[in-house]
Amino acid sequence: MRLSEDEARARFAAARVARLATITPDGRPHLVPIVFALEQDVLHFAVDRKPKSTTALRRLANVAAHPDVALLVDHYADDWTQLWWVRADGTATVRDATADVLARLAEKYPTYVDEPPPGPVVEVAISRWTGWRSSSSS
Amino acid sequence: MRLSEDEARARFAAARVARLATITPDGRPHLVPIVFALEQDVLHFAVDRKPKSTTALRRLANVAAHPDVALLVDHYADDWTQLWWVRADGTATVRDATADVLARLAEKYPTYVDEPPPGPVVEVAISRWTGWRSSSSS
Repeated sequence: MRLSEDEARARFAAARVARLATITPDGRPHLVPIVFALEQDVLHFAVDRKPKSTTALRRLANVAAHPDVALLVDHYADDWTQLWWVRADGTATVRDATADVLARLAEKYPTYVDEPPPGPVVEVAISRWTGWRSSSSS
Repeated sequence: MRLSEDEARARFAAARVARLATITPDGRPHLVPIVFALEQDVLHFAVDRKPKSTTALRRLANVAAHPDVALLVDHYADDWTQLWWVRADGTATVRDATADVLARLAEKYPTYVDEPPPGPVVEVAISRWTGWRSSSSS
């Protein structure tokens, strides 16, 4: 069954990891996991130094060429009555990190307290929430 | 650090869930979780009746319009030395389900024994494995 927008957003916000789908400049789908902070309909994630600067740059090039992105959070269990997922569709922009955004990322991910992300951040303005859970789940 | 192709494939094959990125006919990224069976460089997943036939049809329309797909398996832990992910890039084709493919899906997912997937399957010929794990993980 479909989740309400509020429930979809709440489940997404609480997740520790999401997957980011972008489109490469030559038109292929690209996919990476991200850690993120969500406030209402605005999501931020930092572009890591690691694993390779070329990887991070690729992600920024993808966003610059095709700002439309999709993000997914999902819950899997072999008991398929417990399945759920939430997809966020939005538009991404590369920005300089602000103290406010860095604070929200560090609040959610303690690793960022000791190692603040050095690079820019990507801001996603989410225009649509789509969520589903197994109709049998509680 | 980068994973070898063999290690990337093995970690992917063992995962219970992956995320499928496709491109919609109007050029936006689309993202859903899937359960799948992998043998060497060929992956299969069934198109579910649920949650809505329109959703399943959307996925098939995406694949028909843009056969290039990306799939991701990832492992998250708050201890970031344990992170890893594997991405598979490939080309998708919609096919009738064969007994062999249904058997492999049912072997991996017991729910499919009682409720075999009714629809077609999508076959992905994987042309590239990309895997990464935190350089500190064991």
